[in-house]
Amino acid sequence: MERSVFFISDGTAITAEVVGHSVLSQFPLTTALYTLPFVESETRARAVREQINALYQQSGVRPLVFYSIVTPAVRHIIEESAGFCQDVVQALVGPLQQELGIAPDPVAHRTHGLTATNLSKYDARITAIDYTLAHDDGISLRNLDQAQIILLGVSRCGKTPTSLYLAMQYGIRAANYPFIADDMDNLSLPAALKAHQPKLFGLTIDPERLAAIRDERLSDSRYASLRQCRMEINEVESLFRNNNIRYLNSTNHSVEEIAAKIMDVLGMSRRMY
Amino acid sequence: MERSVFFISDGTAITAEVVGHSVLSQFPLTTALYTLPFVESETRARAVREQINALYQQSGVRPLVFYSIVTPAVRHIIEESAGFCQDVVQALVGPLQQELGIAPDPVAHRTHGLTATNLSKYDARITAIDYTLAHDDGISLRNLDQAQIILLGVSRCGKTPTSLYLAMQYGIRAANYPFIADDMDNLSLPAALKAHQPKLFGLTIDPERLAAIRDERLSDSRYASLRQCRMEINEVESLFRNNNIRYLNSTNHSVEEIAAKIMDVLGMSRRMY
Repeated sequence: MERSVFFISDGTAITAEVVGHSVLSQFPLTTALYTLPFVESETRARAVREQINALYQQSGVRPLVFYSIVTPAVRHIIEESAGFCQDVVQALVGPLQQELGIAPDPVAHRTHGLTATNLSKYDARITAIDYTLAHDDGISLRNLDQAQIILLGVSRCGKTPTSLYLAMQYGIRAANYPFIADDMDNLSLPAALKAHQPKLFGLTIDPERLAAIRDERLSDSRYASLRQCRMEINEVESLFRNNNIRYLNSTNHSVEEIAAKIMDVLGMSRRMY
Repeated sequence: MERSVFFISDGTAITAEVVGHSVLSQFPLTTALYTLPFVESETRARAVREQINALYQQSGVRPLVFYSIVTPAVRHIIEESAGFCQDVVQALVGPLQQELGIAPDPVAHRTHGLTATNLSKYDARITAIDYTLAHDDGISLRNLDQAQIILLGVSRCGKTPTSLYLAMQYGIRAANYPFIADDMDNLSLPAALKAHQPKLFGLTIDPERLAAIRDERLSDSRYASLRQCRMEINEVESLFRNNNIRYLNSTNHSVEEIAAKIMDVLGMSRRMY
């Protein structure tokens, strides 16, 4: 039986979603998900409460509600709904208040909002995205001294999404460089990259998965053939080993996992946005 | 006095970070942050415990620990540390178990991991990133029928980061189109865009902030002059109003907020990754 699940917040609802998904992932449930951000007024909160109650009446099953709302009057309206309501943040605030001996001072949106104090950090994020776009797919090998990470790998192994994620979520200036079919006869590490050995990180992927991904793009091509994919992966993994470049197989990992692993292996500290 | 804060997980630690930051944002604290992902073995957990204990001994102040670890033996090692430890997920799992009448079945990494069931959803995400890169900054007005959102605005108002965030976090195929200085004499909506009116969304920004951003890129230029920025913003906001294009001022908002607001206004449901 399907459960309706609501993620509700007076901000972006990202926190409610992340926590809610973590909690739900522990239960074998079929769910219908509703994310409702910016529930800031009592009027909107009442409309949301009616939506929850209507779903309960239709289905006879209590919707699950993961919420985080700062303004008490708005929060109480949601808590009065027929849903099974869990505040994703407050459960931890009380105990922490005891430990710190400081009263909490909640301000809506703070978690993912822009303030005078995080504006320069935020500019760094935008700068990182600009840098990463300008250094995607080997577009430019200039200014690599400004890169914090340089990803290497064959076409379609996950370099671009990983670079963009590193820039977006961690403010990391991530360049990436592809090894293409024409390089394979005599594969070597370009001198421009060799100079930045400590920043280099390789991505590899199972040839079968690579062939499937490439086939989506250019079906029945040599580029997408399993034989070609196997050869390229073999060559590039040898290059990684011969040049002491740390690398990771991306096949069974999400962009989040790959990015977190790279930061961890390279010993880089994460900035949150 | 500075507090050391640890975010610890046997996965990416994203959940621990997001919840921890939400909780911490309610207290006026100066913090030194340590994110430790992939704490999967008892050996690594013991090393982390020693790190926490050493910081406590040095400073005399208990480090704060936000953690989420599935394997009990690993978790217990962290819980034995001298830190003030808060499990960011379990507090909600118990009550939910009662409500559902189902026992939880925890599996490490599930939240941000790749499995057979979410692989096609994951492919959709990568496809969205590819699409968005190919349709960034008006590069191509072809295949706009495949776009789910088309962002409009002047140069440096936030179109590119917002488009990439929509693709990365929500799997949305987001195109964007810039209005440039040469367009301003006789500004009108290109026919290729007009055909997609329901998908159009405008971004605007305060001229002062725009001038500051542009000055970073090309200082003391006409492009970055306050006069030019004011004129462009005036023209583009008029165009938005005349064409009934919904728009948002990005000045005081993070990419997360802008993206969440656009999805909300356009009535699009969010997919999580």
